[in-house]
Amino acid sequence: MTETPAPLAPGAVIGILGGGQLGRMLGVAAAQMGMSAHIYCPEADPPAAATALRVTRGEYDDADRLSAFAAAVDVVTFEFENVPASALDALGDRVAIAPGRAALATAQDRLVEKTFLNAAGAPTTPFAEVSSLEDLRRALDRLGAPAILKTRRLGYDGRGQVRIERAEAAEAAFEALAGAPAILEAFAPFRREISVIAARGRDGAFRAFDPAENRHEGGILRESRVPAAAPAEAVEIARRVLDRLDYVGVMGVEMFEMPSGALLVNEIAPRVHNSGHWTIEACAVDQFQQHVRAICGWPLGDPARHADAVMTNLIGDDVAAWRRWAETPGAALHLYGKGAPRPGRKMGHVTVTRPLGR
Amino acid sequence: MTETPAPLAPGAVIGILGGGQLGRMLGVAAAQMGMSAHIYCPEADPPAAATALRVTRGEYDDADRLSAFAAAVDVVTFEFENVPASALDALGDRVAIAPGRAALATAQDRLVEKTFLNAAGAPTTPFAEVSSLEDLRRALDRLGAPAILKTRRLGYDGRGQVRIERAEAAEAAFEALAGAPAILEAFAPFRREISVIAARGRDGAFRAFDPAENRHEGGILRESRVPAAAPAEAVEIARRVLDRLDYVGVMGVEMFEMPSGALLVNEIAPRVHNSGHWTIEACAVDQFQQHVRAICGWPLGDPARHADAVMTNLIGDDVAAWRRWAETPGAALHLYGKGAPRPGRKMGHVTVTRPLGR
Repeated sequence: MTETPAPLAPGAVIGILGGGQLGRMLGVAAAQMGMSAHIYCPEADPPAAATALRVTRGEYDDADRLSAFAAAVDVVTFEFENVPASALDALGDRVAIAPGRAALATAQDRLVEKTFLNAAGAPTTPFAEVSSLEDLRRALDRLGAPAILKTRRLGYDGRGQVRIERAEAAEAAFEALAGAPAILEAFAPFRREISVIAARGRDGAFRAFDPAENRHEGGILRESRVPAAAPAEAVEIARRVLDRLDYVGVMGVEMFEMPSGALLVNEIAPRVHNSGHWTIEACAVDQFQQHVRAICGWPLGDPARHADAVMTNLIGDDVAAWRRWAETPGAALHLYGKGAPRPGRKMGHVTVTRPLGR
Repeated sequence: MTETPAPLAPGAVIGILGGGQLGRMLGVAAAQMGMSAHIYCPEADPPAAATALRVTRGEYDDADRLSAFAAAVDVVTFEFENVPASALDALGDRVAIAPGRAALATAQDRLVEKTFLNAAGAPTTPFAEVSSLEDLRRALDRLGAPAILKTRRLGYDGRGQVRIERAEAAEAAFEALAGAPAILEAFAPFRREISVIAARGRDGAFRAFDPAENRHEGGILRESRVPAAAPAEAVEIARRVLDRLDYVGVMGVEMFEMPSGALLVNEIAPRVHNSGHWTIEACAVDQFQQHVRAICGWPLGDPARHADAVMTNLIGDDVAAWRRWAETPGAALHLYGKGAPRPGRKMGHVTVTRPLGR
């Protein structure tokens, strides 16, 4: 789209690429705002079907289906960042896509992402491109060990990465990635991870929810809590990132807080984000509604919190404890309607709220 | 069902009779809890379709369709109280129905309802059965004027009722109801209306949300606010009503607070209730989730509020102001996905939250 489309009125159909739990929660938000969701995904019986008015089952390389999907919706968004660029191309240019192709392309490649971030004034840990074992050895010389070798593309929840403790382990680490284009990142001995869930509207308006403090286990987010007493700089960094991308929608910006208090951006997710699920209970307009507002050209919502909150992911067999969570005072239990639990699979989450500041 | 069914596990299908906004919000709750909704209603494109995994379009006297619907779901509930008893009969006895037939039958007839309430220890305004003009004259003698003449069945949002200012107006009022069986209710010069949204589980557990103060305009709810500083007796009255009905699910209990501080029950709604919509933002477990919990045999959720709230209905053309509401700080805008606004039609609502006690 070269022209800015008109704001979508209530009744619009939100096209969503991807059928997981983020799509399910986006569907709720769309319905709450008088819209409806149309999901596109390859899976049968996706979690998002429960809150979608329509589901198109199709592969991401099925240009005909994608084109028909584009014709049936008023705007297209996505609930995972590894949407193939070719899928967006197949949607054509008659429907708005938000966030846009540039944000997606940036977030899909760790090297492009970190290069972009630094250019935007968002500091990161030092990093180097690694295409060969020689590259890796030179990078280790420069960045030192420990360091993390990561595939440039398709990593998530700790997959596609190897920690290198000593320079001697370079060869084994390089082989572990099986020749995939990679990036070496200096290890950041951070004090904690925080994230900013931020939104930018079509008109350039910017709003951020309060930063959350996150705790990971085994590379997967375990817990997010607000308030996090994060430096004000966190929101300013997020603003620079979204502005520089001319971004439209909600983005999750993960940052490391270093012992010095400095903030380094770890990664950006051009979509609603697991560490923002607490906004469902603790804010009048949650991250899902905020995303729908942004991509529809609506005014962004007030991100103020009216409660404190702790969000805990239910991963794999954690979900067996649903009944105990259902009995926990102040706990909002969310289950994603997935089938059997598998190790590492996000099955649901729980947000425990408390009155603000008590 | 004569035996208590086992609690439904996540993944269950909630059958809902009725396709309006209450069904739409029940569908959200079901999806949040890992379940899904299957709507049954006669309308094409009902508001509830956006959050239902399945929709069966059928009339309430289509026994075959109702029977097939019953076979496809794990429990049946309803989102309006005027479900014909024959529709419940057509569902058969292989699927649990909650709330049960007794609650529905009680709430469908104002005379039965008020007689029941008094027997349950829930005071009401004085009333009398009116089947003839003679009945009405005698009742006016006893109860005095002003008084309200109401049809026993099928009244809602102020329809099917006539206010009688002087005894001389009896005949005109009687004719206005066109011979429908009626009830005369003494006018209650109340200070304000409050409502209690209460839930009762299969195990008899009882939980109530904080009472709300309600304001009506033209017989239709305009605004509900919490906290309401209501007498503690309000919740005790609700408890008596639900217990006496051996009720399972959420019920809305509307009460008049008299100048003396006494509480009179105005009416009960055996379903989620418009004056409980504020719970979506202000409680960890909202009235819709609470209802799904109750009818599924789950433990009831904590009804504590973590925020103060004011809910305003968007009725008819009010909805044209959606954009202004979208820009109001602290406002959660809910639109029901209905088509054209009509006078008196509930098109959406807005809940403005504030941190608790501020």
